[in-house]
Amino acid sequence: MTEATRTKLTNVSVATLATALYKRGLRNQVIQGVHPVAPKGRNMVGPAFTLRYMPAREDRNELSVFRNPDHPQRVAIETCPEGHVLVMDSRKDARAASAGDILITRLMVRGGAGVVSDGGFRDAATIGGLEIPAYHSRPSSPTNLVLHEAIDINVPIGCGDVAVFPGDVVVGDDDCVIVIPAHMADEVADEAVEMTAYEDFVTEQVKGGETIIGLYPRTKDEHLASFEAWRAKNGR
Amino acid sequence: MTEATRTKLTNVSVATLATALYKRGLRNQVIQGVHPVAPKGRNMVGPAFTLRYMPAREDRNELSVFRNPDHPQRVAIETCPEGHVLVMDSRKDARAASAGDILITRLMVRGGAGVVSDGGFRDAATIGGLEIPAYHSRPSSPTNLVLHEAIDINVPIGCGDVAVFPGDVVVGDDDCVIVIPAHMADEVADEAVEMTAYEDFVTEQVKGGETIIGLYPRTKDEHLASFEAWRAKNGR
Amino acid sequence: MTEATRTKLTNVSVATLATALYKRGLRNQVIQGVHPVAPKGRNMVGPAFTLRYMPAREDRNELSVFRNPDHPQRVAIETCPEGHVLVMDSRKDARAASAGDILITRLMVRGGAGVVSDGGFRDAATIGGLEIPAYHSRPSSPTNLVLHEAIDINVPIGCGDVAVFPGDVVVGDDDCVIVIPAHMADEVADEAVEMTAYEDFVTEQVKGGETIIGLYPRTKDEHLASFEAWRAKNGR
Amino acid sequence: MTEATRTKLTNVSVATLATALYKRGLRNQVIQGVHPVAPKGRNMVGPAFTLRYMPAREDRNELSVFRNPDHPQRVAIETCPEGHVLVMDSRKDARAASAGDILITRLMVRGGAGVVSDGGFRDAATIGGLEIPAYHSRPSSPTNLVLHEAIDINVPIGCGDVAVFPGDVVVGDDDCVIVIPAHMADEVADEAVEMTAYEDFVTEQVKGGETIIGLYPRTKDEHLASFEAWRAKNGR
Amino acid sequence: MTEATRTKLTNVSVATLATALYKRGLRNQVIQGVHPVAPKGRNMVGPAFTLRYMPAREDRNELSVFRNPDHPQRVAIETCPEGHVLVMDSRKDARAASAGDILITRLMVRGGAGVVSDGGFRDAATIGGLEIPAYHSRPSSPTNLVLHEAIDINVPIGCGDVAVFPGDVVVGDDDCVIVIPAHMADEVADEAVEMTAYEDFVTEQVKGGETIIGLYPRTKDEHLASFEAWRAKNGR
Amino acid sequence: MTEATRTKLTNVSVATLATALYKRGLRNQVIQGVHPVAPKGRNMVGPAFTLRYMPAREDRNELSVFRNPDHPQRVAIETCPEGHVLVMDSRKDARAASAGDILITRLMVRGGAGVVSDGGFRDAATIGGLEIPAYHSRPSSPTNLVLHEAIDINVPIGCGDVAVFPGDVVVGDDDCVIVIPAHMADEVADEAVEMTAYEDFVTEQVKGGETIIGLYPRTKDEHLASFEAWRAKNGR
Repeated sequence: MTEATRTKLTNVSVATLATALYKRGLRNQVIQGVHPVAPKGRNMVGPAFTLRYMPAREDRNELSVFRNPDHPQRVAIETCPEGHVLVMDSRKDARAASAGDILITRLMVRGGAGVVSDGGFRDAATIGGLEIPAYHSRPSSPTNLVLHEAIDINVPIGCGDVAVFPGDVVVGDDDCVIVIPAHMADEVADEAVEMTAYEDFVTEQVKGGETIIGLYPRTKDEHLASFEAWRAKNGR
Repeated sequence: MTEATRTKLTNVSVATLATALYKRGLRNQVIQGVHPVAPKGRNMVGPAFTLRYMPAREDRNELSVFRNPDHPQRVAIETCPEGHVLVMDSRKDARAASAGDILITRLMVRGGAGVVSDGGFRDAATIGGLEIPAYHSRPSSPTNLVLHEAIDINVPIGCGDVAVFPGDVVVGDDDCVIVIPAHMADEVADEAVEMTAYEDFVTEQVKGGETIIGLYPRTKDEHLASFEAWRAKNGR
Repeated sequence: MTEATRTKLTNVSVATLATALYKRGLRNQVIQGVHPVAPKGRNMVGPAFTLRYMPAREDRNELSVFRNPDHPQRVAIETCPEGHVLVMDSRKDARAASAGDILITRLMVRGGAGVVSDGGFRDAATIGGLEIPAYHSRPSSPTNLVLHEAIDINVPIGCGDVAVFPGDVVVGDDDCVIVIPAHMADEVADEAVEMTAYEDFVTEQVKGGETIIGLYPRTKDEHLASFEAWRAKNGR
Repeated sequence: MTEATRTKLTNVSVATLATALYKRGLRNQVIQGVHPVAPKGRNMVGPAFTLRYMPAREDRNELSVFRNPDHPQRVAIETCPEGHVLVMDSRKDARAASAGDILITRLMVRGGAGVVSDGGFRDAATIGGLEIPAYHSRPSSPTNLVLHEAIDINVPIGCGDVAVFPGDVVVGDDDCVIVIPAHMADEVADEAVEMTAYEDFVTEQVKGGETIIGLYPRTKDEHLASFEAWRAKNGR
Repeated sequence: MTEATRTKLTNVSVATLATALYKRGLRNQVIQGVHPVAPKGRNMVGPAFTLRYMPAREDRNELSVFRNPDHPQRVAIETCPEGHVLVMDSRKDARAASAGDILITRLMVRGGAGVVSDGGFRDAATIGGLEIPAYHSRPSSPTNLVLHEAIDINVPIGCGDVAVFPGDVVVGDDDCVIVIPAHMADEVADEAVEMTAYEDFVTEQVKGGETIIGLYPRTKDEHLASFEAWRAKNGR
Repeated sequence: MTEATRTKLTNVSVATLATALYKRGLRNQVIQGVHPVAPKGRNMVGPAFTLRYMPAREDRNELSVFRNPDHPQRVAIETCPEGHVLVMDSRKDARAASAGDILITRLMVRGGAGVVSDGGFRDAATIGGLEIPAYHSRPSSPTNLVLHEAIDINVPIGCGDVAVFPGDVVVGDDDCVIVIPAHMADEVADEAVEMTAYEDFVTEQVKGGETIIGLYPRTKDEHLASFEAWRAKNGR
């Protein structure tokens, strides 16, 4: 992902991106059932670095396993590249935590761009207060060892019923999180910027009393000229 | 619905209305699973204008369908009468959006009193910032075309497992939304105002240390006099 | 529960307590599916006083039943001992209310330490504004009579899939609620205070750039000395 | 319950009983989510004897607890009166068993009229082969100790979202199970027998080509005479 | 639908049809969550005639409503054209019945080709014994009046999350039910017959020890000749 | 797994094995939500060979992918070792198939001991008629490409919320499927055989009128002698 693309994706909504992907035949890229731990008022953007959890078996998941420096959960936190989003496949099960504030703080300090789990975080109130954007299903205080064993790092996973491949571009806003296949990120970002300009124009028109018929989507010629004028005026 | 009834319904809670309907044998009028996109601190009140979604079939729901000025979703937004609440039957499925900020803005500008979906809205953070009250299940960024085809306007529908007939009176507060059958709206509004007066009196008493036994509901005669005095004093 | 234990439990997180219980073989003490009606920024702590709801049968649950001074819901509110947490088994069904603002206000005035239901409260917006901590699944305006009949006071119950025995110690923070078996409350509180000290130290280290490997959990000797120094310095 | 009533209830369907109860304002007496472990082709009928499970806490539910002769699960099996139906409140959770074949065999030998759980039975294939009717949600092999602690015998419970009071009359056919409040069992049985006669007449008419309009329910006078003739001819 | 198409659809599986539709971009035509009340060992085939249920409101759904000869549920049964499949939108809610044995018997006598509900049937054991194929979610004894009000006949509906338009061709086998858009029924039937021939050939080969690689799907030329020989030999 | 262990596991129930594992601290080894496609009246036994599905992305899952001889689903079928059970992680999603009859037939011909998916099979009626035991959640006709992409072979997976490692011993009976960690299979098989002998003895006693108290579990000395006599007599 280029810096230009990252910047573009910072300024468009997940809804707009979802429509851009829908045009390309991808109907199912919004991670279902997750929301911001706390809204940040700005987008999370970064390539996906993944962690896969499987169900925990009691004899393999005593508290002592965390003493192992190679435990995949810990390694994921310590190796997630700067600017990447750590995406966790928690099998949509928030009855135990995917991670807690100490790990997410460490991820933030290391330069992580964000974290997403289709389970839940413990210490969620604290995580919500951190700078790093975090998305989950709901707060969940039990240690992950109760239900989840971290088993694989940076393999293809599912998260909230969406396919996530390492390197896919992950974007989150105050509503949702979307996964853009790596090979189409640039093109989708470009289109989303264009769409956003038009949507902003439309919103202004609608607030001024214009009907949506013929305007959104544009089927009347008259709006083409107005939009061009608006772009010129607003430098977009 | 008279303006007097609208005013009364603006000043009572959905909980109180639910009890008033329960007394009349209606146990199931609170829309399940919806909440305010953002709390407004005031009630939404208006007759229902409905939109029915059915499952979307791919060949009937390409992006181009919105170019049709007669698309029912667009028409619903453009024809919902002033002062009405647009209620959408999204089959309790929030995996794709019921509508987005541009349409809801248009509905607001046109004088809509509010909007309710048992699915989810895209651009929910933006919608939450609008003046118009909106209720849904959760933010959902994918375009409705992925799952929902708007098929009927102003027919009887289900919303959150509640029957909604066009013209039924819809009231929402910061907790929930309730549907009052049109023919009993006046009578229920009257009763709810009375109940609210008594509940406000009770709350004051309870805060002052009174037990609820005999007071709520009132079975002790002594509270009758106090309540009458309270009403006189508070002009209610 | 001693006052010392209460104080300790006021200053630790539910996540930490969950881990302390996990060490003792208890994996399932966090009440699933409940959250604060409104975050209080402080812990709820108190022994459990319980109320059991069963499904409501129509002929036993007309509105008049509340005129009975011995109705178990009312009695629970009026007899819950000071400093206790009222825990309601609502069978995880929030389609009707577990209680409303008047009853919760009365509980608060009587000195209740908090209230938890695995269903939902009506008048939730009002309850959220009260001093008393309250936890539920979601706002629910219908009267409990629609679905729930209060049947037993202070018997062992389930709440959010967790066993709750009268007298068990209930702790809630801004994320979750946990149930500590009465006989181990002192010991668990002690351990949680110790763990919290270390976690606070770790958070400080991690914010300063330290890796979690060897630090959390501590396997490197060097951190032992730093921690002891930190404790001395911070008086913990 | 008289023997006459038991006999009547043996020869009517749960559907017919549900309608008879609906006429009396009871809408919710059919236990949701249970079915026969194996269809018996005959009705289960008997007064309810109840067992309440709560969530299991690990330290109270080691395998050794079954050595206690007073363990409520075992006591329920050994004290359920002859001709009664043992109804278990398993909180609709079939992830662990409510009971297994040995206990159900013992219940059968002791004269139990049947067993119902809103969880699942282990050894279900074996239980299905026993003479005693059994109803559950699905086979479930894990011991109940994993999730369920038997805590109360013969108290009011919920089963499949239905209120069950000890002594209520429980009837199961090859579709479903219904709970008839004890005080109305005789009257409901009488009415159901009458309804069944008419339904059998209707079925015969419909198979012969008659329209249901005017016949079911009967609004045309002509069907009254035919029905009376049919009753006389069939001795019903 | 021509008789030729009907015959073809009688001899192919729903799985094969699902793949044929998938090739045409339709991914979601199999009705989710329904199965045969009793397997028939033969396909149900017919154009859809639809019935839409909405949530029932108590004051509109007393038992007496069935005395109305224009009640939509009754009218649907009496007007569904011969050879058609009656498809009911029961909002995936099987807590009350969609219909019972008397109505389904009448539908059968009138020549209905089958019946599908995404809710449940009462008298299911009896319905399972009828000649007419019926599909539902599970047996459900309560009268539909408890939850469902029949409101519309032969409008577009959802059934098990699938779009069903009147006239769409509905096919059910012992596994599932699929909805084929009317305009592509002939073409899909043709293709499915071809696919079935090849699948039958493949099954025979695989039973004889052949690997699926290169055979299913066919990528090796050698299988083309064998298949042609097989067709000639088996007259397909 | 030795042949002796396989034989032992063929003659014990999943319920007995679940209890044997519970004694060793493993509470969660029974795969939740699966049942036999058709009961076989005999156990499925074999080491696990696994296949992991992830959510399908449209552009990676066109029908042509099956032409690739290296497609993981096909490879899994063709490489699962003789005597092994193929266990599929379908993320508990049965909206599309995990496999169909041709692949399962091929697996059977190759000597597979069985197949388990926590999703559903297409052509389930046919699969149920095959010799090979198969377990799933429900029949599901849509091709797997709609929802599932086969991504990994023989890695640790979750199936029905249970951890499955390649080589773990999988046992299925007519109720459920259980996963025994490889390293304890022999010991658990031995214990289960012993337990089964005692349970068979108990069943005989209970059918003869013996109370379960003191017998199951055995706490009375007298039953020890009877059991030993029974063993001698029955050669067990």
